[in-house]
Amino acid sequence: MSLVIPPDAKSWIAVDPDSHFPIQNLPFGLAAREDDNETVVVRIGDFAVDLCQLSACGLLPEEDFPVLHSLIDLDREDISHLRRLVYELLKEDNPTLRDDKELCSEALIPIDQVDMLVPVEIPAFVDFYSGIHHASNVGRMFRPDMPPLLPNYRHLPVAYNGRASSVIPSEVPVRRPKGQTKGADDPVPVFGPTKELDFELELGFFLSEGNDLGEPIPIGSAEDHILGVVLLNDWSARDVQRWEYQPLGPFLAKSFATSISPWIVSLDALEPFRVEGAPQEPDVLPHLQPSKPSHYDIHLEVAIQTEKMTQPQVLSRSNAKYLYWSFVQQLAHQTSNGTNTEPGDLYGTGTISGPAEGTYGSLLELSWRGQRPIKMTETGEERTFLEDGDTVIITGYCQGDGYRVGFGELRTTVMG
Amino acid sequence: MSLVIPPDAKSWIAVDPDSHFPIQNLPFGLAAREDDNETVVVRIGDFAVDLCQLSACGLLPEEDFPVLHSLIDLDREDISHLRRLVYELLKEDNPTLRDDKELCSEALIPIDQVDMLVPVEIPAFVDFYSGIHHASNVGRMFRPDMPPLLPNYRHLPVAYNGRASSVIPSEVPVRRPKGQTKGADDPVPVFGPTKELDFELELGFFLSEGNDLGEPIPIGSAEDHILGVVLLNDWSARDVQRWEYQPLGPFLAKSFATSISPWIVSLDALEPFRVEGAPQEPDVLPHLQPSKPSHYDIHLEVAIQTEKMTQPQVLSRSNAKYLYWSFVQQLAHQTSNGTNTEPGDLYGTGTISGPAEGTYGSLLELSWRGQRPIKMTETGEERTFLEDGDTVIITGYCQGDGYRVGFGELRTTVMG
Repeated sequence: MSLVIPPDAKSWIAVDPDSHFPIQNLPFGLAAREDDNETVVVRIGDFAVDLCQLSACGLLPEEDFPVLHSLIDLDREDISHLRRLVYELLKEDNPTLRDDKELCSEALIPIDQVDMLVPVEIPAFVDFYSGIHHASNVGRMFRPDMPPLLPNYRHLPVAYNGRASSVIPSEVPVRRPKGQTKGADDPVPVFGPTKELDFELELGFFLSEGNDLGEPIPIGSAEDHILGVVLLNDWSARDVQRWEYQPLGPFLAKSFATSISPWIVSLDALEPFRVEGAPQEPDVLPHLQPSKPSHYDIHLEVAIQTEKMTQPQVLSRSNAKYLYWSFVQQLAHQTSNGTNTEPGDLYGTGTISGPAEGTYGSLLELSWRGQRPIKMTETGEERTFLEDGDTVIITGYCQGDGYRVGFGELRTTVMG
Repeated sequence: MSLVIPPDAKSWIAVDPDSHFPIQNLPFGLAAREDDNETVVVRIGDFAVDLCQLSACGLLPEEDFPVLHSLIDLDREDISHLRRLVYELLKEDNPTLRDDKELCSEALIPIDQVDMLVPVEIPAFVDFYSGIHHASNVGRMFRPDMPPLLPNYRHLPVAYNGRASSVIPSEVPVRRPKGQTKGADDPVPVFGPTKELDFELELGFFLSEGNDLGEPIPIGSAEDHILGVVLLNDWSARDVQRWEYQPLGPFLAKSFATSISPWIVSLDALEPFRVEGAPQEPDVLPHLQPSKPSHYDIHLEVAIQTEKMTQPQVLSRSNAKYLYWSFVQQLAHQTSNGTNTEPGDLYGTGTISGPAEGTYGSLLELSWRGQRPIKMTETGEERTFLEDGDTVIITGYCQGDGYRVGFGELRTTVMG
């Protein structure tokens, strides 16, 4: 039932070769139109295709999709089926929608005329720590006398429960949070705005289908539960985190906001970019062994633009294939104790750093704990952590032969 | 607007003096009646009063309470108002309901004819670590060469985000979870049923009203956001926890289930039992200083009954006043970074151990990490951690002059 759209497929809607949204992608999102109505949309090129409109005109069979105000009632088969119907309508040789000027003007919304929302209600957010180079860097910084990875790291995907209520969409600013901090030499802690606001370059995946309490999701069927993938920025206040995190882990240092990109890219669209991850040694336990390659070759990039700059400067280029633990391993682990999950649950991968400088996914690593300020070439400004007015832009895409399947941008400005 | 019911008030419904549910309490719950309809109820003595029935008969003004299928649409004023109306109807000298035999037979349900459910939908669950004797005991066990409390403990209420989806009501069994564990001398970890299943004696509180992202709840208004209090058992798999928890805190060791008692006891009902907590030294930061005493004198008790026993054996007697951080301090801290909260959010206090043996709130402490097995007097059996078939019974109450305001029982059997 999965739908991998051929690399040579074309749409009657013109799409630039380096667009993230060719006919091979067709990701889903939730848009607010100018009349403030919320509607489920599919992205192609510079347009959002309004599925409620297509449904109202009978172009999506009502018996299959009676309501398209939410993505959450759709399981993975529905998503594939729906993507196939949209694909058929957008193929260059299909005149149904193409030649219906009136319907086109209703159903095809120029992308600058919609506000993209958090695509589904999110019952729970779990954040992993599966970027092995990130975890190693953090270990080197904070436990210099020990092996960089803790003994459990290669045996299970370390994670913590995050805060679902504060997930925000792209373009919504993040407020610099206040928090309690204490320097090593300070006699007492103080409460005030964080001085070490940081981003974390991650991917996120949404569940389309949950599991019942006591019924783990086996790794072999984990993909069937995944609605699709987004970019994710797990905002962190490093000074708050250092003081609060022992012994129960990060709490207020991360709960104030998590940003996600608006387009949910299906696993079907990512299928041509499936790759083997780095070898896992020692062998992982059987319930965490995927039966086929479960990583994806997704180029990732973080850029920053300060208020004085006229264009962003790229800080880091990384890749999703550097994750030690894959999506399906994460989900199989998280439910292995019988925890129940729900449609719309969101999972973050953890910070995806590459192995070398220039590929790190956080300022903590890029400035090596603030010791190596980063120079903005255009203005000569320096950054260790984020300042008010800075905009962080995360992007990601898979490079096909003559086309890209991408995520667009996740763009967030820091407010004081 | 708050409603403290006088100690000498009486109802026309007979209530035993050691019942947890005299007219001074009137806690709320959500019940499934024998016809499977869900309805909001108030407990008095051995009856659940069906508020939907009272509402349908015009005894609760429709303009105030149009829908009583959920507690979540009610803010703290509504709750006080509703409790006052029910109080008036149940007072011994009020004939309205008392003398209406037909309505009584509809609205007063014998308590053994209802199943009590999780009382509200729970968007998020946060679990604190505010039992200072518990935290000290854990420190002594796991870090014997260091001071028992970590440096941050007396400056902020340490907490982690838990899993809301797996909160279960009293009487629903807990399944022994599987998990990854590794003994200190084992070469590799294994995956299988936990061998160290434990309870944690806690209280929980629900929010009636949330806050917007970026708008902390000041400690002075924190009580206005609290719907009421329940007993809470934060099930823990100690062997899983030991192996997984570094560096991001507990995850699968606690996400498989959290049990709560069915009756939400309002802060108004607890008001006569408000007490000063232990002195906080050093002084806490201003945003965490309550302006009046914010602890409660609530007797707590844990008992266990194995399959072979005919009656439970009390393992521990503790008190909520041993908490280092109070409810309002916890809520002010959790939102101090601007995290948004929602009606129905649940907070656990952390394990409430007292200062002496026999007052500890977990088997981890009672058996001192399994080194001191606990003998069941009736059968001669021994326990370090829980075995399949064991039933854990938590109770709690405030002792008034000739009456008790209590929580009833939180009763859970371990299934293999």
